[in-house]
Amino acid sequence: MKPTLPQGTRDFLPETVYKRNFIFQIIRSQFELFGFEPLETPAFENLETLMGKYGDEGDKLIFKILNNGLERVEKHQQANEDFQKVLQGKNVKGITERALKYDLTIPFARFVAMNKNQLNMPFKRYQIQPVWRADRPQRGRYREFTQCDADIVGSDSLINEIELLQIYINVFQHLKIPVQICINNRKVLAALALKCGGIHLLTDITLAIDKLDKIGLNQVVEELKRKQLSDDAISTIQQYLSFHQNNTNNFLLLSQIETLFSNIDIATKGIKELRFLFNYFQNIQFDVTLARGLNYYTGTIIEVKPLDIQMGSIGGGGRYNDLTGLFDVPNVPGVGISFGVDRIYDVMEEKNLFPPHIHHSAQVLLINFDNQYLNKNLEILSFLREHHIACELYPDSIKFDKQMKYANKKNVAFVILIGEDELKNNKVSIKNFATGKQQSVSKEDLISILEPIANK
Amino acid sequence: MKPTLPQGTRDFLPETVYKRNFIFQIIRSQFELFGFEPLETPAFENLETLMGKYGDEGDKLIFKILNNGLERVEKHQQANEDFQKVLQGKNVKGITERALKYDLTIPFARFVAMNKNQLNMPFKRYQIQPVWRADRPQRGRYREFTQCDADIVGSDSLINEIELLQIYINVFQHLKIPVQICINNRKVLAALALKCGGIHLLTDITLAIDKLDKIGLNQVVEELKRKQLSDDAISTIQQYLSFHQNNTNNFLLLSQIETLFSNIDIATKGIKELRFLFNYFQNIQFDVTLARGLNYYTGTIIEVKPLDIQMGSIGGGGRYNDLTGLFDVPNVPGVGISFGVDRIYDVMEEKNLFPPHIHHSAQVLLINFDNQYLNKNLEILSFLREHHIACELYPDSIKFDKQMKYANKKNVAFVILIGEDELKNNKVSIKNFATGKQQSVSKEDLISILEPIANK
Repeated sequence: MKPTLPQGTRDFLPETVYKRNFIFQIIRSQFELFGFEPLETPAFENLETLMGKYGDEGDKLIFKILNNGLERVEKHQQANEDFQKVLQGKNVKGITERALKYDLTIPFARFVAMNKNQLNMPFKRYQIQPVWRADRPQRGRYREFTQCDADIVGSDSLINEIELLQIYINVFQHLKIPVQICINNRKVLAALALKCGGIHLLTDITLAIDKLDKIGLNQVVEELKRKQLSDDAISTIQQYLSFHQNNTNNFLLLSQIETLFSNIDIATKGIKELRFLFNYFQNIQFDVTLARGLNYYTGTIIEVKPLDIQMGSIGGGGRYNDLTGLFDVPNVPGVGISFGVDRIYDVMEEKNLFPPHIHHSAQVLLINFDNQYLNKNLEILSFLREHHIACELYPDSIKFDKQMKYANKKNVAFVILIGEDELKNNKVSIKNFATGKQQSVSKEDLISILEPIANK
Repeated sequence: MKPTLPQGTRDFLPETVYKRNFIFQIIRSQFELFGFEPLETPAFENLETLMGKYGDEGDKLIFKILNNGLERVEKHQQANEDFQKVLQGKNVKGITERALKYDLTIPFARFVAMNKNQLNMPFKRYQIQPVWRADRPQRGRYREFTQCDADIVGSDSLINEIELLQIYINVFQHLKIPVQICINNRKVLAALALKCGGIHLLTDITLAIDKLDKIGLNQVVEELKRKQLSDDAISTIQQYLSFHQNNTNNFLLLSQIETLFSNIDIATKGIKELRFLFNYFQNIQFDVTLARGLNYYTGTIIEVKPLDIQMGSIGGGGRYNDLTGLFDVPNVPGVGISFGVDRIYDVMEEKNLFPPHIHHSAQVLLINFDNQYLNKNLEILSFLREHHIACELYPDSIKFDKQMKYANKKNVAFVILIGEDELKNNKVSIKNFATGKQQSVSKEDLISILEPIANK
C-alpha cells in the first residue's frame, strides 16, 4: 500500500513549521500587547452547535464524525433508520453527533454562551487553531487551515473597532506585507436593501454588488434583473455603485451615501460609525461593495487584501450584535477579526519576506568517530546544552564523509571532532562549516565560540 | 438550546493555555537542544492509513469522518450498500474515507514512507499535536488530548536511546516533577515467550505480567492458566517475575535473566542493549514486567511515571525496527518517546508546580473617563505597545468603580488615568494596583515604571 495524504491537507516540514510559527508569533504578540488572552476549544463540537450557522452551503461543508460503536448488533436497526434520514439530507444523532469545527467564531459563541456569568466582561480572547472545511481544494484553499482570531464580546464601543484595525495595521507592518484594509457597515447595506424594497433583499443585493470589481456594472445589473428587482431598485443600486466607481475619498463617499439614504435611520447610524473610524485611520478604504458572507454581522465589516498580488482576502471580520443569541443567550454584542495564516504564508513565500535564519534546530554536529569517545561526546553534548546551544552527536560511527554530508544537508554552522588527540590533550576540535577554519580549543572556549548561535 | 461540550473534550481558558504552553515550551526547547526539528501532520488521515495499526480495540476507538455529499441522490444506492457493510463492522470507503489521528507515530511513519528519499537520514523530528480517541472519558483520560513526540528514524544506534532518556530526565527536572523512569526490552519479552512455547504467546504473557504490581503473583498465575499456558511455561514465568519481586538492582536482575535465558539468542541481544544503557544511567529502573501495548516495538521500551502520586504513565516510548514496513517501505529502524501533556498538567496542578506569574496578558488598564480623552489614550496605548508593554483601554466610559472591578478581576498591575488635569499638564496618572500608590508622571517616565512587566 502506497500511503497518501487526504486531499486538501498538508504535512508541514520543519522549515515550514518555523515559518508558520514566525507568522503566529507576530500575530500572537500583537494580540497580547492589545490585552487579548488565549482560548482554545476542541477540534470537534456537538453537531447541533455548528449546523445551521453557516447557511445551507456551509452545512454541507462541515466534516461530520461517524458515531463509534455503530457496528454493535443491538444498534443496527436504529442506525439503519438514521442512515436513511442522512440520505435524505437530514443529519441525525443516530449516525453522527459530532463535527469538526468550521471556524473559530461559532465555537467561541458557544463558549461564551456556556460561561457568560464567569467571564470578566468585556471579554477579550484570541484563538489560533485549525479549522476544517470540505471545500474543493484549490490554490490558497485547503481542507485544514489555521485561523487566528481576536474577538471582544460584551461591549458595543467603537473603540474596539479602532483597536482591531490597529492590530491589522501593526501585524502586516511587522510581516512587511503591504495591504489594503477595506471597511463597510452592514447598516449601510441594510439601508440599501430597505430603499430597494425591503430587508429580505439584502442577500440578493450584496451577493450581486460584491462582484462589481470582478464582473463590472453591466453584469451586476443583469444579475439583479434576474433576481426580479424592480427598475427603481436597480437604479438606486446603480447610483450607490457609481459613488464607488467615481472616487475613493472616504468622506466624500460618506456624504454621497448620506444624501442617498437621508431618510433612513439605520443608514444614519452606519454612516456615523464609519465617519468615527475614518477620523482615526487615513489608510483604510471605504468600500461600499464589501458585504462579507456571514449573516451574523450587524455593523462594521472589515476585509484585508494584499497589494500587488493576486490572492483573496488574508483577513476579515466584523461586528455582530447578538452572536450568542444563536444559543439563547441574548445581548452579548461583539466584534472580531481573523487572519488567514495559510494565505499569509503563501504571500510571504511569493514575496520572499521570511527572514533568512528562522530555524532553531541544532547548528552543531559532533562527529562520531567511535564508541570509545562516547563518554567525552556525551559530556560535551550536555555541557553545550546547559549553555542553550542546540547540538547533536551523529548516532552511528560511520564514515566521516557521510557524517559531513549529513551536517551539510542539515545546514549546521559547526562540527565538533573528538578523537584520540583531543582525548589525550583534553581539547576538542571545532570546525566552522562555512569558512572551513578548524581549531583545537578547551571545553570552556567552545561556549564563547558558540554563544552567538545559542537558543534564547 | 443550551449548548454543551462533547463528552471528553475541554475548553482551555487563558490561564490553562498559559500553563499548557509553559509545559510545551520546556519540552520543545529540550527537543530543539537535542537537534530535533518540528513536523506537523494533518488532523485526519486516510482511513486505511490508521486502520489495523492499533489492534482491534484501537480500530474501534478511531474517530471516523462521514464522507460529505452522501445526501446527493445519485449516491444513495451505493451509500446504502456501504452502510450495510459498516453495520457488519467493516469500514468501507463509500461512507467513510478519513479518520482523526489516534497517535502521532503512525502518521509520522506514513510521512516517512512518503518522503523517505527526500529526508536527511537519520531524521529527527518532534511533533506536538492533539490526537483523538473514542475512549470512555475518565480522570486523566480525554477524547482529545495532546501528545509531544520525538523520534529518530534511520539509525539503530543505542546512542539514540541515551539521548531520548536524557530528554526525559531533563524535561522532568525542569518541570520539577519527580519521576521513575522504567525500561525493558521487547527482546527479553520475546525470549520469555519463546521459552514458554513460542512467540505467539507474547501478547497473552505480556498482558498478564503487566498487571503484576496491581493484582499480585497469584492472580497473574490464574490468568495464565486461563490462557492455557503449560505448567512448565507458568513456572518459567513465575521464576522470571520472582527476580522482579526480590530486588531492584539493575545489574543483578540482568544477570539473573541472563542465566534464565542463557541459550536464547534474542535474550542475549536484549540484555546487552539494556546493560549498555544502565551503564549511562543510575536512576533508571529495569522493570521486567513492562511491556507497552503497541506491537510495533522491537527493542528498548520506556515508561515514565510520576512518584508519590496516583496517576498512570506520563511518558512512554520505545524502539521499532520496521515501522514504515506497515506502508511497504522496509528497513527504517527508529526509536521514539512521547509525553502525555494532559496528565503532566494534572500532576503539576496537584503538586502546585506552575510558577505564579505565568501569563502574558495586559497588566496595564487605561481608565476610560470620556471620549474627549480618546486621542490621548490612543497615543499612550501605542506608545506603551511600541515599548512591548501590553495594555488596553476600557472600551466604554462607564463608572470608574466598574472599570476598577474589571481591572481587579483581570489581575492588572497598574491602571493609568487620563482626565482633564492630566491633559492640561501633559502628564498621566499611574496607580500601582497592589500598593494603591498613585503618581503623576510624563509619558517617558511611564516606560521606566512599566519596563519590568514588558513582554520579552
